Amino acid sequence: MPPAPLPLAMLGQAFMGRAHSNAFRQVGPAFAPTRGLRLKTVAGRDAKALAAFAARYGFEGWTADWREVARDPEIELVDVATPNDLHREMSVTMLEAGKHVLCEKPLAGTLEDARAMRDAAAKSDAKTFVWFNYRRCPAIALARTLVREGRLGAIRHVRARYLQSWGGPETPLLWRFDRDRAGSGAHGDLNAHLVDLARFLTGEEVTRVHGAVAETFVKQRKDPATGKLGESTVDDCVLFLASFEGGATASFEATRLATGHHNGNVIELNGERGSVRFELEDMNVLWFFDGADAPREAGWRRVLATSPEHHPYVDAWWPDGHIIGYEHTFTNQVADVLRVLAGERPLQPLADFADAYETQRVLEAALISAREGCAVNLADVG
Amino acid sequence: MPPAPLPLAMLGQAFMGRAHSNAFRQVGPAFAPTRGLRLKTVAGRDAKALAAFAARYGFEGWTADWREVARDPEIELVDVATPNDLHREMSVTMLEAGKHVLCEKPLAGTLEDARAMRDAAAKSDAKTFVWFNYRRCPAIALARTLVREGRLGAIRHVRARYLQSWGGPETPLLWRFDRDRAGSGAHGDLNAHLVDLARFLTGEEVTRVHGAVAETFVKQRKDPATGKLGESTVDDCVLFLASFEGGATASFEATRLATGHHNGNVIELNGERGSVRFELEDMNVLWFFDGADAPREAGWRRVLATSPEHHPYVDAWWPDGHIIGYEHTFTNQVADVLRVLAGERPLQPLADFADAYETQRVLEAALISAREGCAVNLADVG
Amino acid sequence: MPPAPLPLAMLGQAFMGRAHSNAFRQVGPAFAPTRGLRLKTVAGRDAKALAAFAARYGFEGWTADWREVARDPEIELVDVATPNDLHREMSVTMLEAGKHVLCEKPLAGTLEDARAMRDAAAKSDAKTFVWFNYRRCPAIALARTLVREGRLGAIRHVRARYLQSWGGPETPLLWRFDRDRAGSGAHGDLNAHLVDLARFLTGEEVTRVHGAVAETFVKQRKDPATGKLGESTVDDCVLFLASFEGGATASFEATRLATGHHNGNVIELNGERGSVRFELEDMNVLWFFDGADAPREAGWRRVLATSPEHHPYVDAWWPDGHIIGYEHTFTNQVADVLRVLAGERPLQPLADFADAYETQRVLEAALISAREGCAVNLADVG
Amino acid sequence: MPPAPLPLAMLGQAFMGRAHSNAFRQVGPAFAPTRGLRLKTVAGRDAKALAAFAARYGFEGWTADWREVARDPEIELVDVATPNDLHREMSVTMLEAGKHVLCEKPLAGTLEDARAMRDAAAKSDAKTFVWFNYRRCPAIALARTLVREGRLGAIRHVRARYLQSWGGPETPLLWRFDRDRAGSGAHGDLNAHLVDLARFLTGEEVTRVHGAVAETFVKQRKDPATGKLGESTVDDCVLFLASFEGGATASFEATRLATGHHNGNVIELNGERGSVRFELEDMNVLWFFDGADAPREAGWRRVLATSPEHHPYVDAWWPDGHIIGYEHTFTNQVADVLRVLAGERPLQPLADFADAYETQRVLEAALISAREGCAVNLADVG
Repeated sequence: MPPAPLPLAMLGQAFMGRAHSNAFRQVGPAFAPTRGLRLKTVAGRDAKALAAFAARYGFEGWTADWREVARDPEIELVDVATPNDLHREMSVTMLEAGKHVLCEKPLAGTLEDARAMRDAAAKSDAKTFVWFNYRRCPAIALARTLVREGRLGAIRHVRARYLQSWGGPETPLLWRFDRDRAGSGAHGDLNAHLVDLARFLTGEEVTRVHGAVAETFVKQRKDPATGKLGESTVDDCVLFLASFEGGATASFEATRLATGHHNGNVIELNGERGSVRFELEDMNVLWFFDGADAPREAGWRRVLATSPEHHPYVDAWWPDGHIIGYEHTFTNQVADVLRVLAGERPLQPLADFADAYETQRVLEAALISAREGCAVNLADVG
Repeated sequence: MPPAPLPLAMLGQAFMGRAHSNAFRQVGPAFAPTRGLRLKTVAGRDAKALAAFAARYGFEGWTADWREVARDPEIELVDVATPNDLHREMSVTMLEAGKHVLCEKPLAGTLEDARAMRDAAAKSDAKTFVWFNYRRCPAIALARTLVREGRLGAIRHVRARYLQSWGGPETPLLWRFDRDRAGSGAHGDLNAHLVDLARFLTGEEVTRVHGAVAETFVKQRKDPATGKLGESTVDDCVLFLASFEGGATASFEATRLATGHHNGNVIELNGERGSVRFELEDMNVLWFFDGADAPREAGWRRVLATSPEHHPYVDAWWPDGHIIGYEHTFTNQVADVLRVLAGERPLQPLADFADAYETQRVLEAALISAREGCAVNLADVG
Repeated sequence: MPPAPLPLAMLGQAFMGRAHSNAFRQVGPAFAPTRGLRLKTVAGRDAKALAAFAARYGFEGWTADWREVARDPEIELVDVATPNDLHREMSVTMLEAGKHVLCEKPLAGTLEDARAMRDAAAKSDAKTFVWFNYRRCPAIALARTLVREGRLGAIRHVRARYLQSWGGPETPLLWRFDRDRAGSGAHGDLNAHLVDLARFLTGEEVTRVHGAVAETFVKQRKDPATGKLGESTVDDCVLFLASFEGGATASFEATRLATGHHNGNVIELNGERGSVRFELEDMNVLWFFDGADAPREAGWRRVLATSPEHHPYVDAWWPDGHIIGYEHTFTNQVADVLRVLAGERPLQPLADFADAYETQRVLEAALISAREGCAVNLADVG
Repeated sequence: MPPAPLPLAMLGQAFMGRAHSNAFRQVGPAFAPTRGLRLKTVAGRDAKALAAFAARYGFEGWTADWREVARDPEIELVDVATPNDLHREMSVTMLEAGKHVLCEKPLAGTLEDARAMRDAAAKSDAKTFVWFNYRRCPAIALARTLVREGRLGAIRHVRARYLQSWGGPETPLLWRFDRDRAGSGAHGDLNAHLVDLARFLTGEEVTRVHGAVAETFVKQRKDPATGKLGESTVDDCVLFLASFEGGATASFEATRLATGHHNGNVIELNGERGSVRFELEDMNVLWFFDGADAPREAGWRRVLATSPEHHPYVDAWWPDGHIIGYEHTFTNQVADVLRVLAGERPLQPLADFADAYETQRVLEAALISAREGCAVNLADVG
């Protein structure tokens, strides 16, 4: 007889709540995990919308008081899918209640919050996870495998950029433009992904930020509640240069004002012996240059990472050549979370709070560097 | 109070059954249709596997006797997801029992079967649908809209090919390689999609097939049941040339032996005033050349058809730039089927049996042309 | 002391004359051939323009009577760069005068002319060459080498198309639209290149044309001399399907009305073990899929064929990664012609009249097939 | 009667000498300039090779003493195509002798040298030019035109990288790896192009370098003369972040160790209203995103800048769709130099010593920033 499914609660009901709910619903049919999920409770502030949300996505119940979740002895796993300023209080509360916590990225809006979360995780027996979902693109997993097998040799260059174009003056003053809620703008939202991916792929830590620049091009936006202009207090873009412990140089750029780019998360690694490049808008593909190929016929290979036999996670989905999309990275992550909670090995390592805290330190170093106009050693941060 | 969900049965439990089931499960949360689906019964031959399948994908019950479905007065919609030689008997039986039928493509393995199905549909009050799922890629829908708005002008060339590479000598003698089961090989499997897409995009019918060639490169394969070599009695590839009623030339090619191509369904239209190209392996993109652009700066545009505001079906999914995959074309189709059954307009036209019969006539004309070594007028077929 | 340079005459002074002249001027500095060229005479009908042309491109003299060239005992090599209907008379005259002949493609406007040229060449001790210049793209040469080394295995599919878009109704009634001058339209101009490349790359001959279609979309054009509308008597497009002697299927398409395509000569070969694709608009690149790569990491490789060390012809040009263009294919051809005339081996085989006649037979078979609506065996042509 | 051609001398006979000579030979037939060139003298150190070089590329004479050129009253224009440490002495000498000077980039190996050259130019009546040849790619010229016409609006991001992969440990200790000769490594060689292009395209100056990093990965190389290991004293890569006066952020990266990249000069501009991207390995193409397109159908356009009618410089070359290559950027530049010397307007602005000095100041600011670990205001440099 299969074990009773694991009862889960989700805090938050907006876009990320929708993406997470889909993953919670899909993991069963797709992966047939040892222990499945039971969608017990969704918590949010908009009581009126919650019942409809719960019905649509299959949650058994809902509450407008998220602390009820902490008091529910049945709940084992809590998904924190709220704005960044709420991550700390919610996560720490849940950890103290003995629940496993799966938190949206970035870990927190401030390094102080992130540190408190890391410390709470360290004191708890519960497990923590962060939604760095792009780690679970099969193409990214393949890239990491190639690096670990030495196929790239020593890494010399990391080149990462996340270009979007939805943040023009017509975009209203959402919580994402409020530093008190979001901590930062494109930086925490997009560079967080890039730094996590760069650390995940190289297996190395950043040692130094050489320089950085942050800009707010659109300084005022219309408040959707009041209709009046209010100040945008976050960056529209942040760029920074860094070095990894193995000596590789790295450049990072995140922006919401790169006209023409929808979701341009692109990361490339150049190693002594080979190179890889990943582009999120064509996320089933890994570009791979193998320096071991004969020079006459060497070239960047367009590897379609869609083989159920040869690429991780794909056997839960469709035959070779039948691509997956954005949402599958979330479902793949839930499958790995369930593996860990069942005492099994995940297909690819998951970021816990301690790991995500290292990413947060790099983000912080970049902000300091931009503010101070100087290089920052990571040893001096956090 | 919402209407009671529509009870559905599915015949078949293999790969297509899995893709269809996923769509049946997903349509509710994604589209919130006026009238949802109730997954009542799955029917198949492997009784042992059926219970597990039903549990995994959320069917209430199962049966090893598909005729039970016809006798179940509750069932309103039947999905026929079995090999091609069974489409006719199952569909006709279900239509005669007053059920709506949703049938896997190609409509049938032979033109005779297809005609019988078309005739049965004409005599029935029930509605029929065929799984030409690629019509419901947002990029394909955009292409059709551009054609209908006259942005391409008169169409002069259609260029369609569907290249796969899984049919080498090591692939066993599946039902797909048995003419009695499948009717044809790459032709019915892949050219069926191309002909449907070409007719859907141009809004025109084929008038003549100018020539064709069919080849079976791998003549013997190992029977997975007996382990012995058996004869492959279907084509590995079929190519043919045609004309559309508006004068456009068209070339079609389907093959399972195009080394390096996983799922290379590519279709391009050149019109007097513009051109479009679609590639299934990067299916969120439509390439569009607008002849109205100034010559200095005209060029093929890579249009990412992922905008919830601007592209059909996308508002059921994710924000702009967050791509969808193969499975979403099925869910989009179920959403349109449910719209039709609720008396609403589908976002894009659906193929019924009469429509799919026209595609089947073109496929038949190509086979005749290949066999006879002569051009075939469509007026003389079927 | 180096041998005295080889005296050459060129017949024709239009676009092709310009491209050829450039190659004649460039071959010396680029390749330092054993025996260089002396640009002795250019012949054309427009006496007024000839002096300026000769001065600009470095010809010593000019004549408005091309037969003078045949009578000039010094001239060793004659380039025939005139419209197709003149190829035969000029070439045969020059061969009979003992000159080597380098003729523009297609070999002739009609099969009869082509046969007479082949026969004249067979009777002569002089050497013949045809300007199938794309053979001498380094990327094409690499593709041929891979095929010959068995890296693709048996070829199963050839897919060739040449798409241009300059032949709209606004284009005047040039000689290219007059069947008496040109023989055919897109067919002789563009399919000639494709058939030559397909034969060159596979090393195989076409055995059968399965079907074909030719269309003239723009039936009337303005005569640039009279300003009146006249009839276009050539095809705007020709498509045909064929088989090669090794069993490969092949599809060919040539059109001047493919909106959005400037010079879309694309040819792809799929073999049992690998595939290659070449695109003229990005002609320094060969796409190569090596089926011997591990499935996990196999993919189409973008091979930049620009290495002086590893790719033929490149050491005459620039360092790796510094691309060459259209004109270099002509210069590379002249270098090989000079090698042959100096008794050396060309880097890649050159087409002579006998070879080009085989291409012409395939073109003729396609025209017959289009006209008769039936398959044509090559054994029955020419 | 046309004016007597302009007598030119070239100092240097290595790779750049070959590329320049080709341009000097080609400019006449291609552009038919008002006043053509006379290749009078080539000067170099290797007397033995000079005679052959002169013969091959059409120079009338040669000298092993470059100062003779200064003393030759006929010479009007001197091309300085020598290593960076010689640019100053040669250029200043020639300017003082009243010759126009065309100097290889970067202007000099050090800012001090560059300043002296700028000052000498300011004092002279002669004209100066620098070989920033990529300005004269038609695609780059189109990009600049679009920016100037306001099609991109205010520029927000510049993203420039120049990735090569020829500088591994097996590459010998050429002068390019000697700081005394070259001034810097990838920085002066590659970032010089990027900074010039960024300034040329935006029409703006850099105001601040925010941070930088320079690395020498390969610290020792074999001296080709002695066979012994010697120290490489230049950077293998330099990355830096900057701002332009209009507020745009900019990132620059130059490296000789980016495995898989041959000549990856890529520059992208994102503006409020549109974006452009150029890639040197496919240099006939400009990617253009026009924000004025309807959102439904907006996309990056692949503009093939090969139209003789619509793109600058192309009417000197081939019909639309027939691409040009690396060498044509040099010939296009010589055409513009000759226009200026004939009192005509160049098709696109040329960099003179004063202009190139501004690029040199940016390069210097980046080096200071890398060394000091701090931001550098351009106002404080040079």
